[in-house]
Amino acid sequence: MTSFASVHAFEAALADLRGPDADAAADARVRQAELTKPAGSLGRLEDLAIFFAGWQGRARPQIDRARAAIFAGNHGVTVHGVSAFPPSVTAQMVANFASGGAAINALSGAAGLDLTVVALDLDRPTADFTVDAAMSEAECLDALNRGAAVVDADLALIVLGEMGIGNSTAAAALCARSLGGDASEWVGPGTGVDGHGVARKTAVVDRAIAFHADAPRSAFETLRRVGGREIAAIAGAILRARQLGVPVLLDGFICTSAIAPLAADNAAITAHCIAGHCSAEPGHKRLLDLLGLQPILALGMRLGEGSGAAVAANIIRSALAVHDRMATFAEAEVSASL
Amino acid sequence: MTSFASVHAFEAALADLRGPDADAAADARVRQAELTKPAGSLGRLEDLAIFFAGWQGRARPQIDRARAAIFAGNHGVTVHGVSAFPPSVTAQMVANFASGGAAINALSGAAGLDLTVVALDLDRPTADFTVDAAMSEAECLDALNRGAAVVDADLALIVLGEMGIGNSTAAAALCARSLGGDASEWVGPGTGVDGHGVARKTAVVDRAIAFHADAPRSAFETLRRVGGREIAAIAGAILRARQLGVPVLLDGFICTSAIAPLAADNAAITAHCIAGHCSAEPGHKRLLDLLGLQPILALGMRLGEGSGAAVAANIIRSALAVHDRMATFAEAEVSASL
Repeated sequence: MTSFASVHAFEAALADLRGPDADAAADARVRQAELTKPAGSLGRLEDLAIFFAGWQGRARPQIDRARAAIFAGNHGVTVHGVSAFPPSVTAQMVANFASGGAAINALSGAAGLDLTVVALDLDRPTADFTVDAAMSEAECLDALNRGAAVVDADLALIVLGEMGIGNSTAAAALCARSLGGDASEWVGPGTGVDGHGVARKTAVVDRAIAFHADAPRSAFETLRRVGGREIAAIAGAILRARQLGVPVLLDGFICTSAIAPLAADNAAITAHCIAGHCSAEPGHKRLLDLLGLQPILALGMRLGEGSGAAVAANIIRSALAVHDRMATFAEAEVSASL
Repeated sequence: MTSFASVHAFEAALADLRGPDADAAADARVRQAELTKPAGSLGRLEDLAIFFAGWQGRARPQIDRARAAIFAGNHGVTVHGVSAFPPSVTAQMVANFASGGAAINALSGAAGLDLTVVALDLDRPTADFTVDAAMSEAECLDALNRGAAVVDADLALIVLGEMGIGNSTAAAALCARSLGGDASEWVGPGTGVDGHGVARKTAVVDRAIAFHADAPRSAFETLRRVGGREIAAIAGAILRARQLGVPVLLDGFICTSAIAPLAADNAAITAHCIAGHCSAEPGHKRLLDLLGLQPILALGMRLGEGSGAAVAANIIRSALAVHDRMATFAEAEVSASL
């Protein structure tokens, strides 16, 4: 079951995005005004309920099945010392996901999300993108499809996350190539490199941008050249979710970077996406601002694995619960105003 | 079962506050450093787990029983047209709480909180505090004790909230008298009055502050003179929770205003309190800043009823779940660093 049979099919899907059901969203807005509370007093919770009404096509949306999908990949660019951890940690953490010991296991459980972990060819890191494309066309298309495969039409929500030693460097390169700006504006400490590490990462991103400067600037080529398998998988999941009308809850900087090349081709891609949180990685706020996404949470998290988004899923549950279960002024016989 | 037998007993309790268990908090900090994640990468979730460890006296704190307690009161100051809603709405909303149709019913359910609603003499509004003390000594002491009565030693968390038409005016007066500043710095739209309404509220607070200017400035006298029954009940619950070592999750501006007079007497009172959110009411951010409380959420909510705090309770559950359930580097055989 291949969602995108070819690069052309992927590009055609990205060019042809459907929107939410405006009537259902309007009905939800009317309902919010009738609930027993001052108008607008639930703030972002009201916006979230209306958002889900639009994508579910009903005035009182529900969260039945919801999934966290975490993608893992390895990166050739780690040869340049861009991470505080060795590349072997990617596979070690995938084993930790499988045995239930990682943050995302606890956080997806606490939020009522089922958890799917997809390890993408960890024994075959991407090429060093300072001197080559990270992936071949076939590899990148495969990663997009493996991401798309985690999305079912009957999911009410998909939470996306990643694990991959070195991937904050790929994320910075994706942002710089897709959205502009100097490498230094996109590079940060990631999992915790020091100032020298940040300088090494910045130099690596500069070299990568220069190396690929004359290549085509399509979403696919950017993902293929300076992305990674897990990031391409997230991009595939985002686009597939849009085809199926499933809202996406984005995690931190690396997860959100997957949408940057898509948005550069078609800015409408963000319409079914919610930013779960603003991470402590400095580039994330800049990225969210440029994409026009307002994060639900800002808890200083910077772990990845979908962890911040999984925490934010609780807020979405609360938003939909209050929208669905509250009485109207008429039902409760409460005076609406003086 | 009276927690505070006299005004003197209340004042003695406020003067003698115990702190958290520093050893348990230190053990929790050590555990955080051993979990399979970059150090510090869970941000605020780490702080919350360490906070609960200190108050529960164990390195791996749990949330078993947790309660939302909502207090309702009526206010004589409503004669001055300070609210967009008639005073009869307080009792109507209490009926709505009882029948399960209010926001807090849905939100406490979504967060796994049991819900206690205490309506305090709704048929006897407080006196108009621009020309009198809002409550007699006996009335204020009764309200403090009725608040204290909702706190049990076996609660892992108490979420506090309020309902009371007119009470954002009382909250502004409490803040101005306890913490200083002009009335205009503490008055906002509340449930939604317009600019004229805000001007009326500001004038009312100015008159109240002037009327009580020469009265004793103790926490009790401030609560009694310019507070309200539901706000005094919250103050009583906060102090009783501290005696029992139960962490408090505060809601919005009015709920948080209950702690202002306590903090003016003993700044240590905030140590077992967490700010659930920063509401859209302008005075709330100022109040949190002065109290040194950092809100978990900022979702533009301004409903009261404990609604923002109930949403934040989900974040605390996630924080404690991840702290308890994650594997250590040693358990998972993950490399801790290069």
